[in-house]
Amino acid sequence: MSRAARANYREDVAGRANVEDTPELLAYYDQLENLRAGALWTVANKIEPWQPQSSSVPVLWRYQDLRAHVLRSAELVSPEKAGRRVIYLNNPGRKDVAAAVGWLYSGLQTMRPGELASAHAHSASALRFIMEGQGAYTIVDGHKMTLGANDFVLTPNGTWHEHGVSAEGTPCIWQDGLDIPLMNALEANFYVVHPDLQQAVTHPVGDSTAIWGATALHPVGHTWDKGYSPLFKYQWEPTYEALSRYARVTDGSPYDGVIMDYVNPLTGGPVMQTIGASMQMLRPGEHTKAHRHTGSFIYQVAKGQGWSVINGQRFDWRERDIFCVPSWMFHEHANASASEDACLFCFNDLPVMKALGLYREQALAENGGRQAA
Amino acid sequence: MSRAARANYREDVAGRANVEDTPELLAYYDQLENLRAGALWTVANKIEPWQPQSSSVPVLWRYQDLRAHVLRSAELVSPEKAGRRVIYLNNPGRKDVAAAVGWLYSGLQTMRPGELASAHAHSASALRFIMEGQGAYTIVDGHKMTLGANDFVLTPNGTWHEHGVSAEGTPCIWQDGLDIPLMNALEANFYVVHPDLQQAVTHPVGDSTAIWGATALHPVGHTWDKGYSPLFKYQWEPTYEALSRYARVTDGSPYDGVIMDYVNPLTGGPVMQTIGASMQMLRPGEHTKAHRHTGSFIYQVAKGQGWSVINGQRFDWRERDIFCVPSWMFHEHANASASEDACLFCFNDLPVMKALGLYREQALAENGGRQAA
Amino acid sequence: MSRAARANYREDVAGRANVEDTPELLAYYDQLENLRAGALWTVANKIEPWQPQSSSVPVLWRYQDLRAHVLRSAELVSPEKAGRRVIYLNNPGRKDVAAAVGWLYSGLQTMRPGELASAHAHSASALRFIMEGQGAYTIVDGHKMTLGANDFVLTPNGTWHEHGVSAEGTPCIWQDGLDIPLMNALEANFYVVHPDLQQAVTHPVGDSTAIWGATALHPVGHTWDKGYSPLFKYQWEPTYEALSRYARVTDGSPYDGVIMDYVNPLTGGPVMQTIGASMQMLRPGEHTKAHRHTGSFIYQVAKGQGWSVINGQRFDWRERDIFCVPSWMFHEHANASASEDACLFCFNDLPVMKALGLYREQALAENGGRQAA
Amino acid sequence: MSRAARANYREDVAGRANVEDTPELLAYYDQLENLRAGALWTVANKIEPWQPQSSSVPVLWRYQDLRAHVLRSAELVSPEKAGRRVIYLNNPGRKDVAAAVGWLYSGLQTMRPGELASAHAHSASALRFIMEGQGAYTIVDGHKMTLGANDFVLTPNGTWHEHGVSAEGTPCIWQDGLDIPLMNALEANFYVVHPDLQQAVTHPVGDSTAIWGATALHPVGHTWDKGYSPLFKYQWEPTYEALSRYARVTDGSPYDGVIMDYVNPLTGGPVMQTIGASMQMLRPGEHTKAHRHTGSFIYQVAKGQGWSVINGQRFDWRERDIFCVPSWMFHEHANASASEDACLFCFNDLPVMKALGLYREQALAENGGRQAA
Ligand SMILES: [Fe+2]
Ligand SMILES: [Fe+2]
Ligand SMILES: [Fe+2]
Ligand SMILES: [Fe+2]
Ligand SMILES: [Fe+2]
Ligand SMILES: [Fe+2]
Ligand SMILES: [Fe+2]
Ligand SMILES: [Fe+2]
Repeated sequence: MSRAARANYREDVAGRANVEDTPELLAYYDQLENLRAGALWTVANKIEPWQPQSSSVPVLWRYQDLRAHVLRSAELVSPEKAGRRVIYLNNPGRKDVAAAVGWLYSGLQTMRPGELASAHAHSASALRFIMEGQGAYTIVDGHKMTLGANDFVLTPNGTWHEHGVSAEGTPCIWQDGLDIPLMNALEANFYVVHPDLQQAVTHPVGDSTAIWGATALHPVGHTWDKGYSPLFKYQWEPTYEALSRYARVTDGSPYDGVIMDYVNPLTGGPVMQTIGASMQMLRPGEHTKAHRHTGSFIYQVAKGQGWSVINGQRFDWRERDIFCVPSWMFHEHANASASEDACLFCFNDLPVMKALGLYREQALAENGGRQAA
Repeated sequence: MSRAARANYREDVAGRANVEDTPELLAYYDQLENLRAGALWTVANKIEPWQPQSSSVPVLWRYQDLRAHVLRSAELVSPEKAGRRVIYLNNPGRKDVAAAVGWLYSGLQTMRPGELASAHAHSASALRFIMEGQGAYTIVDGHKMTLGANDFVLTPNGTWHEHGVSAEGTPCIWQDGLDIPLMNALEANFYVVHPDLQQAVTHPVGDSTAIWGATALHPVGHTWDKGYSPLFKYQWEPTYEALSRYARVTDGSPYDGVIMDYVNPLTGGPVMQTIGASMQMLRPGEHTKAHRHTGSFIYQVAKGQGWSVINGQRFDWRERDIFCVPSWMFHEHANASASEDACLFCFNDLPVMKALGLYREQALAENGGRQAA
Repeated sequence: MSRAARANYREDVAGRANVEDTPELLAYYDQLENLRAGALWTVANKIEPWQPQSSSVPVLWRYQDLRAHVLRSAELVSPEKAGRRVIYLNNPGRKDVAAAVGWLYSGLQTMRPGELASAHAHSASALRFIMEGQGAYTIVDGHKMTLGANDFVLTPNGTWHEHGVSAEGTPCIWQDGLDIPLMNALEANFYVVHPDLQQAVTHPVGDSTAIWGATALHPVGHTWDKGYSPLFKYQWEPTYEALSRYARVTDGSPYDGVIMDYVNPLTGGPVMQTIGASMQMLRPGEHTKAHRHTGSFIYQVAKGQGWSVINGQRFDWRERDIFCVPSWMFHEHANASASEDACLFCFNDLPVMKALGLYREQALAENGGRQAA
Repeated sequence: MSRAARANYREDVAGRANVEDTPELLAYYDQLENLRAGALWTVANKIEPWQPQSSSVPVLWRYQDLRAHVLRSAELVSPEKAGRRVIYLNNPGRKDVAAAVGWLYSGLQTMRPGELASAHAHSASALRFIMEGQGAYTIVDGHKMTLGANDFVLTPNGTWHEHGVSAEGTPCIWQDGLDIPLMNALEANFYVVHPDLQQAVTHPVGDSTAIWGATALHPVGHTWDKGYSPLFKYQWEPTYEALSRYARVTDGSPYDGVIMDYVNPLTGGPVMQTIGASMQMLRPGEHTKAHRHTGSFIYQVAKGQGWSVINGQRFDWRERDIFCVPSWMFHEHANASASEDACLFCFNDLPVMKALGLYREQALAENGGRQAA
C-alpha cells in the first residue's frame, strides 16, 4: 500500500483485525514499507472479505443499440488495419481489463462477404455464437466449418484459427467470447500470428461434426489428448430439438428451467478447460427462482423475450440482447411470453471454478425465492 | 493334477521347463500331491503358453437355421415355466460354461404380443439387439423404452429389468448378450428376482433417450455415479446416419472399415464396465485386412451380406446371421455387394481387456494382410 | 451340454426355470444341439446362481510340511532344466488350472547362493514375498533390488524380470504369487524368454526405492505411464513401523484389525492392475468379526500365530503358513497371543473385482458376527 | 477505457491492429463508450501480448532485515486485536493486491509461548513453513500436529484451522503462504470465524501423519473426497533423507538440481488444488541452467547459501531468506558452497497453471543456458 493510500481496515468483530493507528505503529509501517513489507492487520479485513465482492456490475447490452455501430465499423476500418472489426463489451467495473464481466471478454464482430481475418493462435480460449448473416465459416487447425444463426463454435486455447464469410454470403455478425482477461491476469497469455497469415484447410469441410457429432457413438481409433472438445461446432437445430425433447420429461431446474451444458463428447466435461457453455429454455410463462453462485456468466438471448432480475435490478431482454451476471449475485429469469419458449445461450468460467474447487451455490431463502426488483 | 492325468509338459527350449520323469521324481510328485501341492516344472509350459490359446472355435450361426426353432419355443414352453424362452448359442469349445465365445453368453429370445418376462437383477451385464417384430419394449430401473429392429438396449449389472411385447405388437425376436460365464468364472454372480415379479414404470416412457440422447449436450444437475451409461437405448436410424456421415470424411480402419463404438455419453467410455459394443460399416466391395487381438467378439449382421475369414476359415453371412471371433485369432471382413454397404453389430469384452491392461493387437504381416482361406 | 451330461436344472420358484422334460422337448433339444445351440431354460438356474459359488475350498498349507520338500527340489532338479524350482499350491477345487484359490497361482520357490533364473516376461502380474534366507535379489526392467525376509516385491505384467541369490547369500525361499490362471482364462497370456536369457542391470541398484520410496514426495520430471507401481519393493521394516504407528490412532477394521494396502505411490491405487496386496496387524488377543466378499485371497503369516475361521472351518496358523479365502466365504481372524501382535500378508484379485464393478461385501449378522467353527 | 486514459495500442505488424486515430473515429469511440462498449482494435495489441507480461518484479527478502520487525510486532499488537501478527511481503508490482508475487500472498508470522490464534476457515488455500522456535502447533479440522523447523503444514481451502505455540515452547516464526489474492481476483473468497473462536482437538495428536504418512501404504477403509491431501504435515527430516537418497541415483534436473514435489499421497497430485510445493537440493557447487515457465513461485532457503539469477538480476541468499520468481522470467540457481548442499523450499500456483492447461516452459538457448547477470 502506498503511504498516501494507507488505510486501516478495522472491524469490531472477534477474530478480525482491529488495531488503532498510533504514531509508533505508523512509524513501524513506514519501516516495513521500506522493506517491501507491511503489517497484515492493516489490510487483513480488506483482503479476507466475508464473501465474494464482485467488481463487475450487472449490465444489459441491447442489440438494437449496438447493431448499427457494429455494422458501421466495417465502413470505418479495414480488416487488414483493425485485425478484427469488433466492438467489445466493457463492464463499468472492469474497464481496466477490457472485460464484459469478471475475467471474461466479449465482443460483437462483423465481416462482409468475401472477407477473412488473419489466422493466429493464443492462450485464451475462444468461442463464437452466430447472431445474423449467411456464409460465415471458421477454420480451426485445418478443420473448416460453416455456420448459421445460433450455432456455437469453439476456437480453443492454442489452436490456429481464422474466421471468414464466403463471397456468396451476406454481412455477418457474431458474438465472440474469450478469457483474454483471465489469461493476462494469470500471466500466461501467448499470442502468435500464423506464419502464412492464413492456414490451409487440411480436412474435409465439416469433418469435426461428421466424426464427433454423433449421439453416444465414437469413431474407433481416433486419439485425442487435448484439453478441449474435438467437436468444434454445436449446431442450433439439434440443440433446440434436444432441449425440446428433454423438456417433455423433466421438471427442469428451479433456477434455470430446462438447461443443458454443451460438453466435450469424449469426456462429458466442459467444451474447453477454462470456458463452459450452456443453452437453456424457459417454458412459456416460466419465472425461475433466484440463486447465486461463484463464477461469471454472459448470456445471449437466442430466442424469445423476457427479463432477468440480477442483484435486485430488472433487465428486460429480447432476441440477440446480451447481459451478464457477476459472481455471487442473485439472479432469476423470466419468459415474458405465455405461448412461446425463450432460449438463453450462456458462456462462463465455471470450468475454472470447478477445476480449482471454488464453486459454491446458494438459493435465495427469502420472499419465496424471488428478489424484490 | 490327479495322478491319472499327470502329465509332464516338456519343451526343449532355453528358459522353459524340461525335466524328465524319474522314479524318484514321480515319488516326489506323489508326496507333493498329498500336501495339496505340485512341482511347477511339470506344468509350467502348459500354464505359460507362448501366446493366448482360445478354447473357443469360430462359429457362424445362420438365422435361417435358428429362426424356426426360436419361434417354436413359444409353442413348446410358457414364459412362466421357462423364465425366458431363449435358444442360447453354444460354442463347441465352451459347452461346459454355456458360452457363445470366451466368457460371453448369447441367445435368441422370442416373445409374443402381450407377453412379458418377470423382472430380476443380476451381476451379469446384459444387452439386447432387436432382430424382428413390432412392439418390443424393455424396462430398466423404472425407465421404459420401446424398441425396433437394429435397436441396441442395455440392461446393466445390478439393474432391475424386464422385457415385453405390447399387445398391439407382433412376435418379436432379439439377440441377448451377457457375460454370465465371466461372472460365474469370477465367482461374483448374484441373481435376484424382483419381489413383485414386475416393476413399475416410474419415469416417462423414453426419458433415458430424451435426457441423455442429445449430441454433446448434457442435462445440468442430473448426477450419475454408476459404472454404466445412463443412456440405455441406442437407436438404429441415428446410428446408421452417424456411420454414413462419418464414412464421408474417413478412410476408415484397414481392419474394420467405418467403425464406431457405442459409448457412455457421460464419460466417453464403454457402455457397461464389462461389455462394449460397436457398429461398423463395410463400404460396397470393401474387404478389410486381417488382424488379431485379445478379447472375445460376437457379431450380428445388421445389414447386407458378405463374409469373414476367421483363423483361416471363411464364413459367409447375410442379415441376422451371428458369428464369433475368439481371442487372438486373425480375422478379416468383406462386403459381398458392389453397391450396398453392409453393417455389423458387435459386442465384446474389450472393456475387461482394457480395464485389466490386457489388450494386445497385431496385424497380419504376410500375404498382403489377407489370410489364405 | 453333451447329451450324456444333459441335465435340467429346475427350481420351483417364481421367476426361475421349471420346465419338465418331455419326449417332444428332448427331441427339440437334440435338434438345437446339432445347431450348436441349446434351450436356456434347461441350464438357466445353473448358470444364474443366487449368489457366488466358489469352486475353491479353504486350505491351509503348513510351512513345516512344505519347507523340506521345497529345499529338496534343489537337489532333484537343476534351475536350467526346471526353469524355476517351485512347489506350487494346488487347491483341490482348482486342480485343472493349477490355482491356489480362484484364478490366483502361488508357489514356494527356492534358490541357492550364486544361482539365478532366466529372464522372461509375461502377461501375468507377479509378486514375491520373502520367507527366509540372505542375498535374494530381483531385477525388473534393469532395476535391481536386494531382498530380505517379509519384503514384498513386484514383477508386473510385461516387465522383463529375473530372480537370483548372491554368491555370498544363503539358500532362500520365497512365496510367488501370480494370476497365471486368470490370464489363461481370459485368453490373454503371452510369454517371452529374454533374448539373452539374462538382462543387464541398467540403473543404480535400489533406484526404484530411492526415487519412489519417499513419503508423499515425488521426483519432478519422472514420467510414468504404466498400469503398475514404479515402486517395485516394499520393505518390511517401514511397513511394520507404519502399521504400528497407525495402530496407535485407529480402532481398526472390525473384520481385519489394523490393515493397510500396499499402493502405487503415483496414483494411490493398487500395486498392479490385476493383483492387490495388504499387510494387517492383529493386536494381542484380537479376534475379528466375520464378513464375506467377492474376490480370492491368499494369506501368508508374516509374524505371530493365531487362527482363522473360514466358511465355518478353523485353521490354526503360525509364522510362514499360507492359507486362502475363496470368494464369498465368511472369514474371521484371531491372534492367539495375549502379548504379541500378529501380522498377515495378503495378496488378492481385488483390483479385478473393483475395476469390473464386482466387489460386494457382507458382514455376518448372526451370532454376534462370529462363525460357529 | 475512460476517455482521459484512452490509448491506441498500434503495432506495425501483419495480423496486429494498426488503426490511426481520426476525428471521425474518436467520435465513434465516444459513442461506443456511452454504450459500455469500445473498439477492440484500440486495445487488441495491449490485451493480447506476444508473451506473458508479469506485473511482479523479482524480490529477495532478507531474513536478517525482517526478523527483528517480525518479533517486534509481538510487542506492538496483541493477537486478539491483530487477529494474527504477520508481516506480509509486498511485491512492488502487486501492492494493490497485497501479493508477494503474482496472486500469491506470503507473510512472516510470530507467536509467543502460550498464545493461540482464533480458528477460522476461508476459500484461500494456506500453508506454513516453520522458520524457528519450539512448540508450534496447528489444528486442522480437529487434527492437531506439532511442528519444528523446516516442517511444512497445510491448512487447506475450507478447513477450520488455528495455530498456536505451547506454553513450554519458545517464540516461533514461520512463513505463511496463501492464495488470498487469487481467491479475491476470482471473486470466490469466503471467510468464516469459528463460532467458538477455538476448535476442539477431536482426533489423536499427529493422527494425520500416523494414518497417511507411510510410504506407499494406505489405511484400508478411510474414505477421502476432498480436493486436498489428507496428510497435513510434511516433516523436514524424512524430506531431507528422501532428497539425499534420490540424489544418489539421479542426475537431477538441469534447471533445479535434485527436486521433489510434496504430493497428496492419495492421488499423487499436488497437496492442494491451487497451491503446490516442492523441496530441492542443490549439490555442492551446483549451478543450474536457466529456464522460464508460467506460474508464480516463492522460495525459502531451508538450508545453505547461494544465489539465484532471475530475469538477469543476481540475488544472493542464505538460510531463511525468501525470494520470488514471477511468471515467464528466466531463473537459475547456484549453491555457493563447494562442500555442503543447499535446499530450497518452494510454493507456487503450478496446480492452477496445470488444471487450466496453461503451463508452458522454455530453456534459455543462449550463452550455454546461463543468464548474463
Ligand atoms: Fe483469436
Ligand atoms: Fe445461475
Ligand atoms: Fe436378465
Ligand atoms: Fe478386430
Ligand atoms: Fe515370471
Ligand atoms: Fe476380508
Ligand atoms: Fe487462515
Ligand atoms: Fe523453474
